[in-house]
Amino acid sequence: MNHFFKVKTLEEVMSLTKEFSAVEPEIIPVSDAFSRVLAKDLFAKKDMPGFRRATMDGYAVAAKSTFGASESSPAWLDIAGTILMGEIPDTITLEPGQAVKISTGGMLPKGADSVVMVEYTQLIDETCVEIYKSVAPLQHVIDASEDFARQDMVLSKGTFIRPQEAGLAAGLGFTQIETFKIPKIGIISTGDEIIPIDQEPLPGKIRDINSYSLAGFIKEAFAIPIIYGIVKDDPDALREAVERAIKETDMVLISGGSSVGTKDYTVEVLSSLPDTQILVHGMSVSPGKPTILAKCGKKPVWGLPGQVVSAMVVLKIVIIPFLNKLKGLKKLDRTIKIRAKLTRNIASAQGRRDFVRVELVNKDGQLLAQPVLGKSGLIKTMIHADGLLEINDNVEGLEKDTVADIILL
Amino acid sequence: MNHFFKVKTLEEVMSLTKEFSAVEPEIIPVSDAFSRVLAKDLFAKKDMPGFRRATMDGYAVAAKSTFGASESSPAWLDIAGTILMGEIPDTITLEPGQAVKISTGGMLPKGADSVVMVEYTQLIDETCVEIYKSVAPLQHVIDASEDFARQDMVLSKGTFIRPQEAGLAAGLGFTQIETFKIPKIGIISTGDEIIPIDQEPLPGKIRDINSYSLAGFIKEAFAIPIIYGIVKDDPDALREAVERAIKETDMVLISGGSSVGTKDYTVEVLSSLPDTQILVHGMSVSPGKPTILAKCGKKPVWGLPGQVVSAMVVLKIVIIPFLNKLKGLKKLDRTIKIRAKLTRNIASAQGRRDFVRVELVNKDGQLLAQPVLGKSGLIKTMIHADGLLEINDNVEGLEKDTVADIILL
Repeated sequence: MNHFFKVKTLEEVMSLTKEFSAVEPEIIPVSDAFSRVLAKDLFAKKDMPGFRRATMDGYAVAAKSTFGASESSPAWLDIAGTILMGEIPDTITLEPGQAVKISTGGMLPKGADSVVMVEYTQLIDETCVEIYKSVAPLQHVIDASEDFARQDMVLSKGTFIRPQEAGLAAGLGFTQIETFKIPKIGIISTGDEIIPIDQEPLPGKIRDINSYSLAGFIKEAFAIPIIYGIVKDDPDALREAVERAIKETDMVLISGGSSVGTKDYTVEVLSSLPDTQILVHGMSVSPGKPTILAKCGKKPVWGLPGQVVSAMVVLKIVIIPFLNKLKGLKKLDRTIKIRAKLTRNIASAQGRRDFVRVELVNKDGQLLAQPVLGKSGLIKTMIHADGLLEINDNVEGLEKDTVADIILL
Repeated sequence: MNHFFKVKTLEEVMSLTKEFSAVEPEIIPVSDAFSRVLAKDLFAKKDMPGFRRATMDGYAVAAKSTFGASESSPAWLDIAGTILMGEIPDTITLEPGQAVKISTGGMLPKGADSVVMVEYTQLIDETCVEIYKSVAPLQHVIDASEDFARQDMVLSKGTFIRPQEAGLAAGLGFTQIETFKIPKIGIISTGDEIIPIDQEPLPGKIRDINSYSLAGFIKEAFAIPIIYGIVKDDPDALREAVERAIKETDMVLISGGSSVGTKDYTVEVLSSLPDTQILVHGMSVSPGKPTILAKCGKKPVWGLPGQVVSAMVVLKIVIIPFLNKLKGLKKLDRTIKIRAKLTRNIASAQGRRDFVRVELVNKDGQLLAQPVLGKSGLIKTMIHADGLLEINDNVEGLEKDTVADIILL
């Protein structure tokens, strides 16, 4: 078997997101909506707020009753009553020259089109108020359909539900909404050198870091990690674990066994599965070159480097966009990038996408990106890192003082 | 009772985080560590990785056996064996002129101090390999204590546990760690105009958006919202709900009833509670002026504006740092700020901190911040917003083309 597939660029790997589809939708209570993804466009069933509403505490008036009012020449208005919160002011119709006391959120009576803030008024007695500032029609008021009109599309399919979208859906009366299910991601660690974390490692052995760090990144992306534990370097054991994970989850991550070294069985095992295509075997990305992507049935199965830092970078940069595809998101790249100035020259190889760990330091208001010291394989480099600097395939590095985008970690 | 407290600046309010302390610690499994906060410094119990380890697939060698090797003048080394993953190579001691086949993660035998990458070698026969590139001592190798040495402090109290920190703790053999508990945050909506979301609002009534949007922001900050529902504008009912929430949670948010309008009972009710101090009644922050902070026993209790947008902005900007204090975080401001160029002039009042909702638009590689259209009270302004532009107290606005920090939403 030819292990040396043509190494793919990051763009070529990313274009393979089109090979996969979102998981099934489900109906959930809107109280669980935060961090989910809408599976259906949401339309306003009614106008919102539905009535003319005060946005300030003060006096509801007809704006024209205040025209010309100022501190030196206030308008005097007759107080026609007080509108209580939640009250329908159907007994009041405001005449010109009248005002009604109102609180933020209160419903304006007929005849009123604006609110004078309480700060610009002075109560003279129970029947009269002085107004020091004129208002324009609809000032300090939200009109009946000003937030959303009936049948407006308010949120579209594929939208990530932030707190405000959850609030809006609730406010529109959606007690339940249709979202995509939360993808379950299977995590398998392979390697004869890997031992469970509760064991004391002998020389040559190392505890299973990947199951825990990869699970963390999956949770960070609002999906559910399912840990399948450690599988020895044995093709039959690996096949059994992978088949089970494919059956039980929506995507599988196998860390270790993806390079061409001694006893790396991942590609062999994946190739032997029914209805399976190897889409990627090697990427021109560093760290992360020995990455495998297979399509098993309809599901993505990844072989990640066993090296803990490479596995984390590949997950964050390459795999999370595929997870976002499964989640049903419209926007697959949800990394946050901030610009910072490099504190020194950084070398890179042409024809390879490099991700360099950097620490962000604020110096006199200027954000500096300082490459993290230490060899690439050290987990402490990820601990000290605030972000990843991406260096493009077609450059040989970046010079000191270059201002570049940093992907936040 | 004097409702007009001296209005506080944002800095004055923020300095009050010192009045509150972190919640209790607890021991949790490391598999649940992501998004928690360390309650105790973590020290390495052993060297990590604990043995000299290959970071590349190739041949373990004594570096000096490769000195001078190049494509035109390769070094020929005798193959002394193969080291399997997880194997202790105690039967091999490498002599000068010898090489041992090794995979990433393998343990180097005695006598070897570096690894030649397989890409720079050519197998001649079973006993001999050609080396095309020299290596330096410790190249492509992680030494026994190079990641962490025994007794190093690896993570400090108050650290937010990202995926990599969770992986590190697991790799160091901490199956359980001491973190702060996850704070529970009580949420109460008040107002006679507020109805449950499953009811059809009559004119003057509005569905309870705040319980859902505020709960979302609490979840986003990795805490647990407890929703107490809607309380009418009635001091006794509010007192009862607040007392219960204070007893059952670590911080309480009361939305609505915080301004000086008709039927705003929050400050009255809070003032009547035993062992309670009103710390803030009004902030020079917009939106969000009518915000109340009380210290009830040891717990923060907030009165937020009922207006949905103001409530969200106050929660995100002002209250989350207090939540971070309760969570035990060292760094209380965890907002992410990115720089963008304003697309137009934005007015602001001196003596007031303004938070303006902006949409971020990428135009030819330049990030633009475009103020969201629509009145401040419209929830759609939060839906269209990607971030908040902060305008300082001492300026009267910002000019078009100013490059400013935007707090991501």
